[in-house]
Amino acid sequence: MNRLASFTLAAACVVAALPAAAQFAKPEDAVKYRQSALFVMGQHFGRLGAMANGRVPYDTAAATANAEVVAQMARLPWAGFAPGTEGGKAKPEIWKEQANFKEHGDKMVAETGKLLVAARAGNLDALKTAFEPAAASCKSCHDSFRNK
Amino acid sequence: MNRLASFTLAAACVVAALPAAAQFAKPEDAVKYRQSALFVMGQHFGRLGAMANGRVPYDTAAATANAEVVAQMARLPWAGFAPGTEGGKAKPEIWKEQANFKEHGDKMVAETGKLLVAARAGNLDALKTAFEPAAASCKSCHDSFRNK
Repeated sequence: MNRLASFTLAAACVVAALPAAAQFAKPEDAVKYRQSALFVMGQHFGRLGAMANGRVPYDTAAATANAEVVAQMARLPWAGFAPGTEGGKAKPEIWKEQANFKEHGDKMVAETGKLLVAARAGNLDALKTAFEPAAASCKSCHDSFRNK
Repeated sequence: MNRLASFTLAAACVVAALPAAAQFAKPEDAVKYRQSALFVMGQHFGRLGAMANGRVPYDTAAATANAEVVAQMARLPWAGFAPGTEGGKAKPEIWKEQANFKEHGDKMVAETGKLLVAARAGNLDALKTAFEPAAASCKSCHDSFRNK
């Protein structure tokens, strides 16, 4: 199995083992959980962006470390959007268009998996190529499902 | 290499590649980052505790999935305690007793690594045995370095 397939399978297993419903003591915990996971992810994603856009020097070890955290965190927020956890900046559409929302989440998990493979490849061009669609997957979901 | 050694080495490499200083745009981001990472970790740690304490049925796949997130998250908060990021519930002692604080952090990373190995072992007794010292490592650090 190549690394991407292996990663995707591992991610799918973990997601399957973490059912969304009823894992939080109260709805506010679910809101805080998804916001926390996305904030941590965003910090590391921003560091990859700084490298991809030439604002900081390219460094394979740092790129890989950041991409690993991004790919790991990308799997987490979805459980925090369980039924009855409306709130924060989340638009009601998340719960009304669940298939569409899930498609956006799956896209982000897939793109951040590719980003990790690119980071491990150890060259800036690979990172740049993978960063763009990953960033687009964040933006697309925010545009549709997050209030300003 | 056994799994624990392999995990510990991997964790050490990632931590080394994520230097603490100057990774955050502003000090508030560092505070939010460490709080977010610890909150996500706490949610998954609590689920392991519920299993270890018999409040929910034991399930190897769920235990492993939760322990993986815990072990991954355990490596993250430390970069958020960079110089100049005092605030939140963090006691000033964190920056005055850095060696002592680091020892507590390292202990938690080590114990959550053992917890993951125990979860993967697939039996409740192993999980119980590893959960106690991991929980003690959280408490010890909170007692010394976190305001109520």
